[in-house]
Amino acid sequence: MGKKRKTKTETTSTGVSSTPFTDALRAGEGFVLADVDQRSTPQFDGDKAAGKEALAAADDELDDLQERLYAESRAGGTRRVLLVIQGMDTSGKGGIMRHVVGSVDPQGVDLTAFKAPTAEERSHPFLWRIRKALPGPGMIGVFDRSHYEDVLVVRVHDLVPPAQWKRRYATINDFEQGLVEDGVTLVKVMLHISPEEQKERLQERLDRPDKHWKYNPGDLDERAHWDAYQEAYQAVFDRCSTAHAPWFVVPADRKWYARLAVQQLLLEHLRGLDLQWPSADFDVEGEKKRLATL
Amino acid sequence: MGKKRKTKTETTSTGVSSTPFTDALRAGEGFVLADVDQRSTPQFDGDKAAGKEALAAADDELDDLQERLYAESRAGGTRRVLLVIQGMDTSGKGGIMRHVVGSVDPQGVDLTAFKAPTAEERSHPFLWRIRKALPGPGMIGVFDRSHYEDVLVVRVHDLVPPAQWKRRYATINDFEQGLVEDGVTLVKVMLHISPEEQKERLQERLDRPDKHWKYNPGDLDERAHWDAYQEAYQAVFDRCSTAHAPWFVVPADRKWYARLAVQQLLLEHLRGLDLQWPSADFDVEGEKKRLATL
Repeated sequence: MGKKRKTKTETTSTGVSSTPFTDALRAGEGFVLADVDQRSTPQFDGDKAAGKEALAAADDELDDLQERLYAESRAGGTRRVLLVIQGMDTSGKGGIMRHVVGSVDPQGVDLTAFKAPTAEERSHPFLWRIRKALPGPGMIGVFDRSHYEDVLVVRVHDLVPPAQWKRRYATINDFEQGLVEDGVTLVKVMLHISPEEQKERLQERLDRPDKHWKYNPGDLDERAHWDAYQEAYQAVFDRCSTAHAPWFVVPADRKWYARLAVQQLLLEHLRGLDLQWPSADFDVEGEKKRLATL
Repeated sequence: MGKKRKTKTETTSTGVSSTPFTDALRAGEGFVLADVDQRSTPQFDGDKAAGKEALAAADDELDDLQERLYAESRAGGTRRVLLVIQGMDTSGKGGIMRHVVGSVDPQGVDLTAFKAPTAEERSHPFLWRIRKALPGPGMIGVFDRSHYEDVLVVRVHDLVPPAQWKRRYATINDFEQGLVEDGVTLVKVMLHISPEEQKERLQERLDRPDKHWKYNPGDLDERAHWDAYQEAYQAVFDRCSTAHAPWFVVPADRKWYARLAVQQLLLEHLRGLDLQWPSADFDVEGEKKRLATL
């Protein structure tokens, strides 16, 4: 997998890379979702064509870093990455899966799309199905929706009593703290679109017969709760954008920018791991001699 | 996912496409593995550069067909595809995963790599872990190694009594017949390399420190059983290349050709499904009016 290349690494004392997209898009102290311009393109001043070029240009480095992460696990390493993608309907989660995650070797990716929980899943604590889907050592796990649905759609519709969903913020923070201690690098991303942009994207799904299968009348019912969802997301950033697992909010009205930004966030976190090729756990010269005789 | 394009379809009365690679690479009546030139490039007379171009050129069609298959399942369809990849160590299975499977939207792919069975897996019938990994409706399942290991490595090393592995050919045929009746299109591929080519590839893994993690001294032990493996593969083609689930043998000394051939085999089988966009199961005009007011 992948060509050999030199990896640039800039790490802070915490091991987390301190680089442009990570800094610019982090939902830090006092972050206000309503202040984010969904059409903006932080840390990138090119146009769509330049953005697509930049996305393609970073493929090799992403490949290389993913392969090193995977190789490390073969030598006994336990580190892994978990990319969590959240966003309103039509915010472009599928496009991230296809164009960012899809550029990575599928052997190193473990993708899970979380739908409304099944009866069995509902009979367990909300993190049960999440734990089952965690990536193994060396893998890049990707969650298309996640445990955050349990404080988003569940909160907006009071699918459980408020006292119950209110407890979940702290439960999630504890859970994620445990993951980080266990060698998981979390990259939590919200794709942030405007209601106007969602309207256009839903309109397109209705206008094109080859897009009808993607349209669900329930999407319109959810659209009617737009403000409640924005409030629920704000609460997520207030409560769960922690030092060990911060949230990143990506303006997503421009699909090309959102893809570039998620790719760069992933890259910056991978660089921060300072991944090296593992050394051989066998006698290289001895094996060369054996091979020569066979 | 994917752009809209017209799909060329050529199907025979059985619904299986009758097209160049499918015909040229099929292990039919009287097929002899030893007669296959591992450096040959059936159905393609271009060079490496042309082969890589042809591979890239077919990406859009593969995308489109995969998306139609997935869309069909959203409308209640149950058809799916299962690509089975087998081959000796270093035959290029990983490259197929990366360069052919990796070009497909990861949301529509379910990849399983089968390793030596665990204690739990060994306590069940050999097809137990296979059934658990079958693709759901609309998916392209991919097996990197498969139930055929149970008549390959198991046969070469008599890991179970001969009477037991000898029964498995018929068990496999019944199992696959059931899959086909259940809407699974099977595409079974052996990547066929020469022992000389394997030696070069192992040598490269030993020469390059960034490839050491891929090297396993056990690969050399297996190499010593080359002829027994070829015999075991021949038995697979004799016994399990059936009308409903034929085997395809891809000359694999040239990696670029093997990738192109597997892609084309997959494409030809997808074309044979005559995939159409499902029609809307909701009131399109009514939804347009609702959207306009929200």
